[in-house]
Amino acid sequence: MALIVHKYGGTSMGSTERIKNVALRVAKWHDAGYQIVVVPSAMSGETNRLLGMAKELMAQPDPREMDMLASTGEQVSVALLAMALKAIGKDAVSYAGWQVAIKTDSAFTKARIQSIDDAKVRNDLDAGRIVIITGFQGVDADGNIATLGRGGSDTSAVAVAVAMKAEECLIFTDVDGVYTTDPRVVTDARRLKTVTFEEMLEMASLGSKVLQIRSVEFAGNYKMPTRVLSSMTDPMLPLEIEARSGTLISFEEDTNMEHAAITGIAFNRDEAKITVLGVPDRPGIAYQILGPVADANIEVDMIIQNQSVAGKTDFTFTVARGEYQRSMEVLNGSVKEHIGAGSIAGDAKVSKVSVVGVGMRSHVGIASQMFRTLSEEGINILMISTSEIKISVLIDEKYMELAVRALHKAFELESA
Amino acid sequence: MALIVHKYGGTSMGSTERIKNVALRVAKWHDAGYQIVVVPSAMSGETNRLLGMAKELMAQPDPREMDMLASTGEQVSVALLAMALKAIGKDAVSYAGWQVAIKTDSAFTKARIQSIDDAKVRNDLDAGRIVIITGFQGVDADGNIATLGRGGSDTSAVAVAVAMKAEECLIFTDVDGVYTTDPRVVTDARRLKTVTFEEMLEMASLGSKVLQIRSVEFAGNYKMPTRVLSSMTDPMLPLEIEARSGTLISFEEDTNMEHAAITGIAFNRDEAKITVLGVPDRPGIAYQILGPVADANIEVDMIIQNQSVAGKTDFTFTVARGEYQRSMEVLNGSVKEHIGAGSIAGDAKVSKVSVVGVGMRSHVGIASQMFRTLSEEGINILMISTSEIKISVLIDEKYMELAVRALHKAFELESA
Repeated sequence: MALIVHKYGGTSMGSTERIKNVALRVAKWHDAGYQIVVVPSAMSGETNRLLGMAKELMAQPDPREMDMLASTGEQVSVALLAMALKAIGKDAVSYAGWQVAIKTDSAFTKARIQSIDDAKVRNDLDAGRIVIITGFQGVDADGNIATLGRGGSDTSAVAVAVAMKAEECLIFTDVDGVYTTDPRVVTDARRLKTVTFEEMLEMASLGSKVLQIRSVEFAGNYKMPTRVLSSMTDPMLPLEIEARSGTLISFEEDTNMEHAAITGIAFNRDEAKITVLGVPDRPGIAYQILGPVADANIEVDMIIQNQSVAGKTDFTFTVARGEYQRSMEVLNGSVKEHIGAGSIAGDAKVSKVSVVGVGMRSHVGIASQMFRTLSEEGINILMISTSEIKISVLIDEKYMELAVRALHKAFELESA
Repeated sequence: MALIVHKYGGTSMGSTERIKNVALRVAKWHDAGYQIVVVPSAMSGETNRLLGMAKELMAQPDPREMDMLASTGEQVSVALLAMALKAIGKDAVSYAGWQVAIKTDSAFTKARIQSIDDAKVRNDLDAGRIVIITGFQGVDADGNIATLGRGGSDTSAVAVAVAMKAEECLIFTDVDGVYTTDPRVVTDARRLKTVTFEEMLEMASLGSKVLQIRSVEFAGNYKMPTRVLSSMTDPMLPLEIEARSGTLISFEEDTNMEHAAITGIAFNRDEAKITVLGVPDRPGIAYQILGPVADANIEVDMIIQNQSVAGKTDFTFTVARGEYQRSMEVLNGSVKEHIGAGSIAGDAKVSKVSVVGVGMRSHVGIASQMFRTLSEEGINILMISTSEIKISVLIDEKYMELAVRALHKAFELESA
């Protein structure tokens, strides 16, 4: 009997009424003959409620205790969902991560799954039960609860699917799939029927926050077919339709020669750019600039260093806008003097726009088409960075929506 | 180094502000050189919130899943308290019941503790840590979470104290001890400095709801000195005073010959009385009446059957008032006809008043003094039942407060 893993997000689990809908949907799949494992998130708002209390007690809550606290949110969800299933006549059993031996390392609040023991779950499934497992958490070698970080339930679901050799992992969420770009910016953005996991990685990391990026990596590493689909449809929607809805993350490049070069336009509005001017061009200078920034736990995104002129160069990088002030303080504090830089300049009102697609590997001219389109709209490019399947540009924040719309049209993403 | 177990109730843990106070109090004891294990309840309201959601999904929530759900309340508490202690510079670590191997049977929602493995906790204590353990819950042989029922955190605390061979178990609660009777009824009710565990058992089961009755049994069986004291005092109250405050449940009868015969007056307002009239006096009749009542999960308290007259007798018992209607239905439904009883009479407005004291073993005349006092007040006694250390009477509800006040005065309980 084919095994399917269902994952439901916090909004889908947001109230007892919604949990009843989840139960109806799960029961429908079970009635159709599938073995089902469900991985639900905490009810929406719950994790924030718990974190709020923690912060009232400790400005930086202790990570081990934070995991002890936060993991309760998912435990509440699994128990309630088991009750909702039993109430409609389905045999169901819930487990916390430690009960089915989801083993993790001890990196509290950002742990990684090391192994899952499938024996217990397999027994329940063979006995006809629906098994519900807490997302987001596992247990370390010393028996401490460790959580996987925000959005970790996606990763749990994919990891459980891999461990159980599931046929497919269905991520039910409050959007109905992955789009060519954000439909709130481009009204004729098109839902993608499939997307490669590499494209999904770039889309996820570039701000299309449909799936936690680690779950996509996990799906990619183990080639687990993973589908993003809506939990907001009628739970009695015929299974034949539901099973083909949403967006499938696939592991084979489309062999169709006519495949569009570009799959989607990703963007991130809230970036900030910092330039260290007049830096002596000598070995180790990049580390001397970014080391203190990394030490302050600030994540750096794009990094550019240009050809030096007369032994001096300019060094530019971007950070999330919320980290801009702190980054400037770090640089002005000691770094500037230490490295003998001329000055520090910054701009906290920039955005990143990226075109993404595995097709660009075999299509020349994507970059020039992108730059021409932006140029025709009078948009100045502040920074450029590329990978094999994406090109990102940094632009003035005020042009972001214009850029996304123009690129979406230029690459004809509105038509299938 | 002496080990003390602290237990804090839901009201004491009711907000992050109150949790900070608990942390200050615990830290004070730790600073004084004690090893401390803390067993907190769920934040007040939390268990009801969880139960409310469960009932929206299932009228009779599945017991295993109910325990999975309800146990999260205490897990939240232990994590928050660990943070509050760390925030004031104390090393602390929290554990769920399963993490320190509090093993229970599998009677979900009313499990009993079978064993506690103290190794892990001992290691932490020896390393100078304050250990915080979830009350109310343990884990069964199959790794399922099982809870001990309402008020189970008291039992957890005493059980942990026994397993750890603690010097004393301190139950911090929102009252400051055990009184000769309810101070809301008798204004000069006096706090008892000590009470024997047998008296406490009678007081607890008779409605002085200070401690879960099972925790008192546990303390009694293992002779664990257990003190009930207030968590509402200033947390910085000098430890010498706090350590002697409240009421100590002791295990030695006071050898003082002048010990008062009576320790306290307990009462239960919400009783109901049911009489089956004209019952044929033959073997098995009591079972034929009470069997169906027990089968309906109705708890019976007092039972009286009088001498028969002409082969017929009257059979009377009491139930909690909330069960009165259902009890009458059970009896009128099939029992009455089946046993050939004359009729069923009932009174849902009766109360039980009891005098309790180990001293009555050696003092004659307690019963007659009690009956005389009630008679002088013109209070009619409907039923009488006695044990070695208590005498209970059932009276009309409207006389309950009068009876309690008169008995409190007659036995001179206001003076030490």
